[in-house]
Amino acid sequence: MSKSLLDELRPLFYPESVAIVGVSTSADGAGNRFLQTLKKFGYRGRIYLVHPTATEIEGLKAYPSVRDIPEKVDLVNISAPAPYVPQIIADCVAKGVPAVEIFTAGFREVSEDGRKLELEIKKIAGGNIRIVGPNCFGVYSPGGGLTLLPGANYPKENGNVGIISQSGGWVTDFIWGADAFNMKFSQVVSYGNGVDLNEVSLLEYFAEDPNTTVVAAYLEGINDGDRFRKTVSSLRGIKPVIIWKGGLSETGKRAVNSHTGSLAGNRSVWNAFFKQSGAVQVSSFEELLDTTAIFNYLTPGNYRNLAFMGGGGGIGVAASDMCEGFSFKIPQSTAEIMGEVSELIPPQGTSIKNPFDTGSPRVPAEVLERLMQIVAGWTEIDALIIHRLFFYGLRELMGEHLAEEDARVAAVIKAKQRIDKPLLVVLEELAYGSDKIDIERDRRNVRDALLNAGIYVTPNVYRALRALYNYSEYWKGAGMKRKVS
Amino acid sequence: MSKSLLDELRPLFYPESVAIVGVSTSADGAGNRFLQTLKKFGYRGRIYLVHPTATEIEGLKAYPSVRDIPEKVDLVNISAPAPYVPQIIADCVAKGVPAVEIFTAGFREVSEDGRKLELEIKKIAGGNIRIVGPNCFGVYSPGGGLTLLPGANYPKENGNVGIISQSGGWVTDFIWGADAFNMKFSQVVSYGNGVDLNEVSLLEYFAEDPNTTVVAAYLEGINDGDRFRKTVSSLRGIKPVIIWKGGLSETGKRAVNSHTGSLAGNRSVWNAFFKQSGAVQVSSFEELLDTTAIFNYLTPGNYRNLAFMGGGGGIGVAASDMCEGFSFKIPQSTAEIMGEVSELIPPQGTSIKNPFDTGSPRVPAEVLERLMQIVAGWTEIDALIIHRLFFYGLRELMGEHLAEEDARVAAVIKAKQRIDKPLLVVLEELAYGSDKIDIERDRRNVRDALLNAGIYVTPNVYRALRALYNYSEYWKGAGMKRKVS
Repeated sequence: MSKSLLDELRPLFYPESVAIVGVSTSADGAGNRFLQTLKKFGYRGRIYLVHPTATEIEGLKAYPSVRDIPEKVDLVNISAPAPYVPQIIADCVAKGVPAVEIFTAGFREVSEDGRKLELEIKKIAGGNIRIVGPNCFGVYSPGGGLTLLPGANYPKENGNVGIISQSGGWVTDFIWGADAFNMKFSQVVSYGNGVDLNEVSLLEYFAEDPNTTVVAAYLEGINDGDRFRKTVSSLRGIKPVIIWKGGLSETGKRAVNSHTGSLAGNRSVWNAFFKQSGAVQVSSFEELLDTTAIFNYLTPGNYRNLAFMGGGGGIGVAASDMCEGFSFKIPQSTAEIMGEVSELIPPQGTSIKNPFDTGSPRVPAEVLERLMQIVAGWTEIDALIIHRLFFYGLRELMGEHLAEEDARVAAVIKAKQRIDKPLLVVLEELAYGSDKIDIERDRRNVRDALLNAGIYVTPNVYRALRALYNYSEYWKGAGMKRKVS
Repeated sequence: MSKSLLDELRPLFYPESVAIVGVSTSADGAGNRFLQTLKKFGYRGRIYLVHPTATEIEGLKAYPSVRDIPEKVDLVNISAPAPYVPQIIADCVAKGVPAVEIFTAGFREVSEDGRKLELEIKKIAGGNIRIVGPNCFGVYSPGGGLTLLPGANYPKENGNVGIISQSGGWVTDFIWGADAFNMKFSQVVSYGNGVDLNEVSLLEYFAEDPNTTVVAAYLEGINDGDRFRKTVSSLRGIKPVIIWKGGLSETGKRAVNSHTGSLAGNRSVWNAFFKQSGAVQVSSFEELLDTTAIFNYLTPGNYRNLAFMGGGGGIGVAASDMCEGFSFKIPQSTAEIMGEVSELIPPQGTSIKNPFDTGSPRVPAEVLERLMQIVAGWTEIDALIIHRLFFYGLRELMGEHLAEEDARVAAVIKAKQRIDKPLLVVLEELAYGSDKIDIERDRRNVRDALLNAGIYVTPNVYRALRALYNYSEYWKGAGMKRKVS
């Protein structure tokens, strides 16, 4: 490759001008909605519209074809019906457009004719244009001012996470869900059927891109398994690649075929791929989100021995049982640790054994800070998980004690600065009533304060363990036995 | 038994008077907080306080001991320190008190001395007093005006769910979580170490209680396995019993011992118990909540063949993959069904095959209603799950289309009335940002509207499938092969 992908895909991710093909004069076409979304998101480049007959739409001049646009066009967005797409691509080639994204569906995922149409597009493009799609949501590039269709309100800040996805729906969920982890993106690409740009080329882009340090992917099929595996392998221990492979079940394969017309492949082949490549395998949307996010918070290491601390006994039992499934160990407290802890918490309704039970979430802040340091300082422990120590319900239940809660948040943040081991905070969603939305608001505010202090926060112990397990397995596979601080 | 448990436990669940032992003059004792909570909750009976020296506390007359209270006392609430409890129980016996709840911790769960103290209490009570606890949160009885410590704002309405729990923390979570399913309670008992009333006697109570139709339990140990198994068995197919057994792992057993001093028992013994008794086994808090709730919404049956309908293709792939783990089937659409569905949705970016993809959540209401009826009318299908059809994000993204959303909710409710198969709605938590709390508020309002129409609503497909699987396994075990409508 003489030209780097960073350069080659610059017009796609940072277009100086965008042409939209598929606007209607009635203002409710997909192209019109894309135009409105792009404006609302704040795209700063030039926008051109293409329409066969109209000369002005929504206050912008319209041209009969891409070829008629008098200036340079970096990116063409296409949502015109499938049968028109080959001609539009031909116009793009004639105009010298370097990049297009095709939202239009109705290709290989619907019929054999659709498959032929898709191949025709590829042939017309002839390698001169980089194509995202068809049958996709396109590109969200915060740095380029570019967003996908439901993305008018997506964050405008750049981040370090790159997304490769065959599903547009999961991509929008991911971007919204990322708020739970204060996660931001370098580039997000929903590429659907992937007639040109696909998991291989997009991963190669992210491999080159210095802004991207973690890559998350939702894949249904694969085009060049060998090349993809090699790229993932080459990033092992450098840029983690987390992959949710959809369609591993028999029924899932059928659904994949209806969705993106992909060949889903066999489970055994995919298992071998994960084993050989070092990609992190996840199997649900939440797991993809949680696992991608944890790479932004922890320092590389293989963490297996856990301490739990929380305001309750039943939660310690549940946490212990859950650890078994992930082969985490909860080392027994030494006499020394029990001695130190027993000086700080009441003798009854508590536990000085790991999992530690403070008896109530209402631990005085200075006690909590000290406890966290004692437990984290214990050599047998690789990581500390605290749970049920924030009780935003207090706001409703015991209003006068709210200052306690704020002090506890500050104490955890202070303790974190002195702890050189991973700290995970489980911040439970306590109340689901429509009349208790204030509790959820309080929870999100506590969460954001902790995230901003560099602490990984998750809504339940199961999700904390699953993410930590995936993280530890990744670094173990990458050759790291245990974190050396 | 000559006297029924309903009569015997009436003073515990519907006390005409409560005495509180463990109030302090400084107003921050556990007893004082219980007093404030009870008043705030609206308990209408007489309240007496007991204090060794004070004659008045918080505006109420205080007596030196329970024996000195001039009138009848139905229930004594004890939070005085452990060493004082035997004498207090002796006073209760002398006074003829029929029921006590002991919040106090520091018994068998902390030491051998604590175990002896607990046995002493039992001996002194001599079978004349029914005891809840020690080391517990006590009783929440909406009908009796009684609540447990953090329960000032619990619902005052009666319901059909009975709870038996060794953990107070999980009980409070359950009561708050029940809002997500519009679930209310007959009685909720956190019984901790269970020196007298325990899983056996409480289940026998619920077996008799006509208000209770479903029983959920969090257990750490068991006292009389045979009797418990027989009671559960006798309720098979009549009152489902859903049990989360804590401490099945080795580390969990250790934690159980520190929590309630229970003997956790072996996994193989518990597996046999579940198999023989017909109790529904669950293994997390969320699973207990979801599974208990589903019994309030579906009609008894064994549902295995599912149809999915949603606004997206990726979600259909994920749903298909998840079905595999639960052995659910997603029958392939017949030509007839495909024909009918294809008349209602666009030919591209959709799927007329099961899992059905409407292409976008923005399906016109009348189309959605019609689609639901077509798919539910299909004979191969036992149950219909709809997902990603409500898009409360619209309020922010496309404000002008909000009326569409309300119409869709109404359409689902209307369709439900004409569908004689289970309908489950997955209402995803879409946005987690602190600045997007309005979306969560909208979501909860849509949820409540659907719940009020008798529709089971859950936040993701996995939880829907797990609950439906547990429900179907229960009815299969109870001898029902398939629902006959």
